Amino acid sequence: MDFAVVVGHRRMVRHFTTEPVSWATVERLVRTAQHAPSAGYSQGVSFVAVTDAALRQRMAEIAGEAWYTGVGHHPFLSEAPVHLVVCTSEAAYRARYREPDKRKPGQPERVWPVPYWHTDAGCALMLVLLAAVNEGLAAAFVGVRDPARLRALLGIPGDVLPVGVVLIGHGAPDKATRSAQRGRGPLTDVLHRERW
Amino acid sequence: MDFAVVVGHRRMVRHFTTEPVSWATVERLVRTAQHAPSAGYSQGVSFVAVTDAALRQRMAEIAGEAWYTGVGHHPFLSEAPVHLVVCTSEAAYRARYREPDKRKPGQPERVWPVPYWHTDAGCALMLVLLAAVNEGLAAAFVGVRDPARLRALLGIPGDVLPVGVVLIGHGAPDKATRSAQRGRGPLTDVLHRERW
Repeated sequence: MDFAVVVGHRRMVRHFTTEPVSWATVERLVRTAQHAPSAGYSQGVSFVAVTDAALRQRMAEIAGEAWYTGVGHHPFLSEAPVHLVVCTSEAAYRARYREPDKRKPGQPERVWPVPYWHTDAGCALMLVLLAAVNEGLAAAFVGVRDPARLRALLGIPGDVLPVGVVLIGHGAPDKATRSAQRGRGPLTDVLHRERW
Repeated sequence: MDFAVVVGHRRMVRHFTTEPVSWATVERLVRTAQHAPSAGYSQGVSFVAVTDAALRQRMAEIAGEAWYTGVGHHPFLSEAPVHLVVCTSEAAYRARYREPDKRKPGQPERVWPVPYWHTDAGCALMLVLLAAVNEGLAAAFVGVRDPARLRALLGIPGDVLPVGVVLIGHGAPDKATRSAQRGRGPLTDVLHRERW
């Protein structure tokens, strides 16, 4: 599919049909996400893909599906046949920047004014969302409210942070969010020329 | 250009020709970035596009161009005809989540286990990098080592964090980084099935 068409069609879809998504498709989505850049090519962003219905139900509860259905949405979390947890590891970045090409002997550990493990997770997330559209699928992203509970459920190590879950499936007609109704701001709100 | 071709061709390019990039192109890149998702549609990610040669030279110094040339790279920062600073505003996200549809009266301010202003900046960054390839351009991303100096140079407000600079131009043959030589890890390193 043409790049501009993929970008133009990409939106959060909050209702899915019961049609499953193959494991081969999940692998293609994550292979695309591996094209995301990462600081020092740390590659500290990783994924847990969950298709098991009981696990997905638990994940939906942890992510607060009741809040979404309470404001009129379909139960799009438990509906989605694939829950792709996006994880990032600050430790992987710190380890990478202790390697000899990044730190001279005796040099202090790098100070990170920006947590690039989160920036890079965003890059990988964006590729998954676009790749889903390119596959004719629909996707939504929900944040993680309680990382500890999600870690416990899926056995995610303590030094790996689940940053959110991409719900992936075949899209069905959904309800617009209050957020989407705000509309996109004009270009002049976000683009400054030469100086802020 | 086909989505998969854009993703496959996308890489950090660290050498640019002297050919300029039009302002209309910069606007198209940022319009594409506006398709990035943002928590609560906060739209707290913004950009400063710099083409002025003297400013770009100062920005290259602040970003540590001497380090890059010292390890054998072309002076790709000062070379790039467009420096697109990616900024994010935690304050914009906090303000959005104080609005009535996000917080009931008397409810405490939301706790953010994940700094989604950084995740979303990553999403926007990824779109800029892909959009550049789709335009036949080349791009590289460098982190911000000293946000205060970059803020002072460009008049960026104190509550807005510059997270990095996308160097954009027409690509020329460059030198591979040590990081890139590490190679991409196998899919099994980053994709866990059902549980970690």
